[in-house]
Amino acid sequence: MAGTKPMALALRPARARDFADIWAIFHAVVAGGDTYAYAPETTMIQARRIWMEPPSVPYVAEQSGRIVGTYALRPNQPGLGDHVANCGYMTHPDARGGGIGAAMCAHSLQVARERGYTAMQFNFVVASNEGAVRLWQRHGFAVVGRVAAAFRHRTLGPVDVLIMHRLL
Amino acid sequence: MAGTKPMALALRPARARDFADIWAIFHAVVAGGDTYAYAPETTMIQARRIWMEPPSVPYVAEQSGRIVGTYALRPNQPGLGDHVANCGYMTHPDARGGGIGAAMCAHSLQVARERGYTAMQFNFVVASNEGAVRLWQRHGFAVVGRVAAAFRHRTLGPVDVLIMHRLL
Repeated sequence: MAGTKPMALALRPARARDFADIWAIFHAVVAGGDTYAYAPETTMIQARRIWMEPPSVPYVAEQSGRIVGTYALRPNQPGLGDHVANCGYMTHPDARGGGIGAAMCAHSLQVARERGYTAMQFNFVVASNEGAVRLWQRHGFAVVGRVAAAFRHRTLGPVDVLIMHRLL
Repeated sequence: MAGTKPMALALRPARARDFADIWAIFHAVVAGGDTYAYAPETTMIQARRIWMEPPSVPYVAEQSGRIVGTYALRPNQPGLGDHVANCGYMTHPDARGGGIGAAMCAHSLQVARERGYTAMQFNFVVASNEGAVRLWQRHGFAVVGRVAAAFRHRTLGPVDVLIMHRLL
């Protein structure tokens, strides 16, 4: 579906029974070893804890009845830092290029505002993931930090990681 | 003991039975609401999980048989980011100014090297904690990022947070 626009993309909170579909996406994305720190061999049980359990609040993007993307919103810090949200986004590899990441980002910003967050921060944007960096920039995020060689990319080796942030 | 040099400061891995002393330090530091994101009302059980349980590896600084400081070393990210260490340090308020933080930092850098980490990163250095910022800089850390107003300081209100990093 690369290049097509997302049609009838519905974003909604994830239910427990969505996890099989979410896991298929999580596993495919993480197995790539090119965008997330989560180990490629992360198990289903670990993924469920990471994505589905508090403080993580999971959402899904559905298209024609199929879950094609998911995001998880959470406070970036506990206590005195919990006014800043953190969010992770994953699109099914078969559904990339259709604007699903953009739709999820826009939705998550609105959900974060509604939940009372006043900013959003990404701690670990892999610098070689240039499409994602541009996407977050189009959604108002600025690079506020860079950590040299903080990610071991499966094919590129050590790659820098960006910290990105925006107010809500 | 402000201004005195640490005498016979012994740094060693924490044991489970050290937790009562560690909790006294953790609680006193966190209750201040001026240096850590952990909520001032963090409970003993939460503190034990944060500081004592894997992947956190806790150490204590002992002086004349009394635990005056503690640090906790852990990977800053899972999986493909777990070559970068993270560390948190706490000194008992009664023992500040005696070089205990410096001794713990130096010790933690050596322990991190021995454990195979190739870098160390602090994600949440409160910018108003200028003594800590200078201390980390003296130990080779550079500011690699700054997040505006990411900490709600008990008396100062919104304060910037620094990301600091060094290779090992």
